[in-house]
Amino acid sequence: MSLLIVGTVAFDAVETPHGKVDRMLGGAATYAAVAASYFTPVRIVSVVGDDFSPREHAIFRGRPIDVSGIERVNGRTFFWSGRYSQDMNDRVTVETQLNVLAGFDPKLPDHFRDSRFVFLANIQPSLQFRVLQQLNIKPKLVALDTMNYWIEGALPELHAVLRRVDVLLINDSEARQLSGRYNLVDAAARIRVMGPQAVVIKRGEHGAILFAGKTTFSAPAMPLKLVRDPTGAGDSFAGGFMGSLTASGRINDASLRRAMIYGSVMGSFAVEHFGLSRLRRLTKKQIGARARQFRHLTHFEL
Amino acid sequence: MSLLIVGTVAFDAVETPHGKVDRMLGGAATYAAVAASYFTPVRIVSVVGDDFSPREHAIFRGRPIDVSGIERVNGRTFFWSGRYSQDMNDRVTVETQLNVLAGFDPKLPDHFRDSRFVFLANIQPSLQFRVLQQLNIKPKLVALDTMNYWIEGALPELHAVLRRVDVLLINDSEARQLSGRYNLVDAAARIRVMGPQAVVIKRGEHGAILFAGKTTFSAPAMPLKLVRDPTGAGDSFAGGFMGSLTASGRINDASLRRAMIYGSVMGSFAVEHFGLSRLRRLTKKQIGARARQFRHLTHFEL
Repeated sequence: MSLLIVGTVAFDAVETPHGKVDRMLGGAATYAAVAASYFTPVRIVSVVGDDFSPREHAIFRGRPIDVSGIERVNGRTFFWSGRYSQDMNDRVTVETQLNVLAGFDPKLPDHFRDSRFVFLANIQPSLQFRVLQQLNIKPKLVALDTMNYWIEGALPELHAVLRRVDVLLINDSEARQLSGRYNLVDAAARIRVMGPQAVVIKRGEHGAILFAGKTTFSAPAMPLKLVRDPTGAGDSFAGGFMGSLTASGRINDASLRRAMIYGSVMGSFAVEHFGLSRLRRLTKKQIGARARQFRHLTHFEL
Repeated sequence: MSLLIVGTVAFDAVETPHGKVDRMLGGAATYAAVAASYFTPVRIVSVVGDDFSPREHAIFRGRPIDVSGIERVNGRTFFWSGRYSQDMNDRVTVETQLNVLAGFDPKLPDHFRDSRFVFLANIQPSLQFRVLQQLNIKPKLVALDTMNYWIEGALPELHAVLRRVDVLLINDSEARQLSGRYNLVDAAARIRVMGPQAVVIKRGEHGAILFAGKTTFSAPAMPLKLVRDPTGAGDSFAGGFMGSLTASGRINDASLRRAMIYGSVMGSFAVEHFGLSRLRRLTKKQIGARARQFRHLTHFEL
């Protein structure tokens, strides 16, 4: 089973208390695709500029990632630059250059249109909607990520796409903003009325919570001795989560819980080094070992 | 096996977004003793004033709590008043009247001196030290709670008592302050050099983490639909944690993990209503049911 991922490929400039990188490969779809590719074949849809060289393309090579949905157009690739606070719980966007993303209109290659598992990473809700319209089957699971910018500026479009979504992945402050409820149990309940049967609330260093059916599942974050760069942690989580679900092919209580853990595993690797440098060099053995560390971190007998 | 608890009994005035109570029974030792009494017999050492009436004493009656260490002196009982922020993650102290606590010098009744399990709730470190000096056996486990006030104002005394302590229970900002390290893995490692073999870092709505031996264990907080009053949550956690450990009589990986869960269970009940009103009306059946909810909240199969 293949996982379709639609979203941004970008160049990032990032400054954290542990260092500064002026230009590195990033973007939500890149993080999610690389993370998911350890679990399942991936089909990626995005746009890059003519500054996106074979060196950058190397990130996708040697992995089960079908890049025929990456459109290359004249101009420069989307660029984001940000700076993290000393405790890395806050970040400011220093600069955003939409560049080729400004004209992005995702087009699914014909052989992508039968995708049963779909992850719509954080882009304009109307584009997320158009992706779903291009599918020629009813997908088994559609997950979506979004952000405060669209909640504030494109709420009707966001509501329209949410009605067709099964799982919303969102951080805690965005869940509060979208629902108008501070309490996260309340917030998730209200969001589930908007369409998604399941809501995953990401809380950074505090882990993530899944609300689905009668299940509430709490996944901790791995306590790490060194977090160098939080960029892409949420997208890597989404990639691990969706990769694990796609590989299992089944949506049930057990597969959702397992997906939450593999999401947390991939997020925990992502933050250990700048950009994709840790995530791109993993082995399945390391991923399995960290998943077992999560079990050791949470297991108890009454 | 009995658990010795030394700390404050107080009257509190509390305002949260869900209401306001002008005078209710509180104090760290009260919360911890009531929480622990569901698991094991408790011996409490504290001081109250002559305004502490039989009506207030009723909180301890009908429970396995030996109150012969509660000294009654002329004057008024310790009074604390606080107000919580809208999101209840911050609180300001409106007023503190030490009253009879100002002259408190904990004296252990003779039949308390053989206590093998000891919880030193948050009071002046030099008083915590004097409690340990009054034991006539080497205790099996001593746990201690403290706060920013003592880290700032009585650090040498705090270090002196920490050298004799097995488990430090502390919140995240205090752990950072005491250790001078922001990263919690680092912070716990540095604190363990100060004496305690185990450190429990309490993170409120984000749960608690245990660092002990080679074990790192993460207990989530129960996602609750309504949190009315966070006062006493940490003390109730400590009571459940120490009550569970004392009842088991053994200190090992399994009993520490279980204690973390029962601590979380008692903390989750405490915040559901103002003051002790939820905590005092529990049944063992309800406690067992909530512990199983924690298992449901965290269990997964890889």
